[in-house]
Amino acid sequence: MKVSELSRISGVSLPTVKYYLREGLLPPGRPMGRNQADYDESHLRRLRLIRALMDVGGLSVAGVRQVLHAVDDTAMPGHHLLGCAHEAIAGVSRADRGTAGWLAARAEAARLVAARGWHVHDRAPALDQLADAIAALRELGQEDMLTLLDGYAEAVEQLARREVGLVLARGDRAGMVEGVVTGTVLGEAMLTALRRLAQEHTSATTSP
Amino acid sequence: MKVSELSRISGVSLPTVKYYLREGLLPPGRPMGRNQADYDESHLRRLRLIRALMDVGGLSVAGVRQVLHAVDDTAMPGHHLLGCAHEAIAGVSRADRGTAGWLAARAEAARLVAARGWHVHDRAPALDQLADAIAALRELGQEDMLTLLDGYAEAVEQLARREVGLVLARGDRAGMVEGVVTGTVLGEAMLTALRRLAQEHTSATTSP
Repeated sequence: MKVSELSRISGVSLPTVKYYLREGLLPPGRPMGRNQADYDESHLRRLRLIRALMDVGGLSVAGVRQVLHAVDDTAMPGHHLLGCAHEAIAGVSRADRGTAGWLAARAEAARLVAARGWHVHDRAPALDQLADAIAALRELGQEDMLTLLDGYAEAVEQLARREVGLVLARGDRAGMVEGVVTGTVLGEAMLTALRRLAQEHTSATTSP
Repeated sequence: MKVSELSRISGVSLPTVKYYLREGLLPPGRPMGRNQADYDESHLRRLRLIRALMDVGGLSVAGVRQVLHAVDDTAMPGHHLLGCAHEAIAGVSRADRGTAGWLAARAEAARLVAARGWHVHDRAPALDQLADAIAALRELGQEDMLTLLDGYAEAVEQLARREVGLVLARGDRAGMVEGVVTGTVLGEAMLTALRRLAQEHTSATTSP
């Protein structure tokens, strides 16, 4: 199909499609004479993945590029891909990382993970993000919120078993790779949306 | 204290503190002669809340303003404040909301919530976000991920009971208000960081 058709079917505007092509997020089509190229189902599929990562997952162009690079690297083990997806959605780092308060929170995060017997890389970006939140709650004098941590850890541990099991059940590498990426980003979007709805319900039914 | 001291103690740079003052996120200090004002503990506390919402929660200046407006509105019921915090972290809306595929996903989100007996506002932004993720997974041909939804809903329902209970236990309105805001934003940061760590652990220990 022509690039105009790719735009029409995907619902992504032509200037945006061309931007993704220039940025290398979308691989070039097969050349068909000057200024024309042929695109196929794989381009449509890639375009949908890009939009999902950006629109629902909130990833930047740089974040999407990082994830797609990992997706296309067939030599990369699935487990490393997960780390790559996490890096891409990790976002900006806080300015005060490295202060005494933050380092104490970082140690607290590492202890929590160790206490649960979780095997995670010591440089996992999520450890720093957990420390960010712990440090912020302590700074705000809201330590009581930290009593929720164990319940959170218990819940996500159970969910992770189902999530990883689902992806492994796919069998084919391409399906597993896309499952890791979308499961990380879109799964998180589903979980946080549901959390807000559950909070609204609980707040509505138990408020004084 | 002087504005320079407020900057030093909080660790927020002087230009940034002045920016928050100009933007009205930080209330003005008590005037102390020309070009001087006196700031107190309440300013320090507010400054920490602003940084936590922006750095850890990823809120924009507009989002922070919206949340602080609600925090300062003592006439607003706590339950409405939760909705306001959710609006502020809702982020940008997707371009394709309104398509047939999205509307079907939106109906699916509403059915899921109804099936669980959750009382939520029909215009809750989280319902649209849930629909965004469902629509994206269907578009990507990853419907199997939707089998996770019930497990997510079950988990967040249990967590919401503890979260709301913890905030209500604070008793004083100021504490409850800050608890709703930070519990929504920082609690989400803790939950998603832990989810990524649990995924890494599960992936590392079960990958083929």
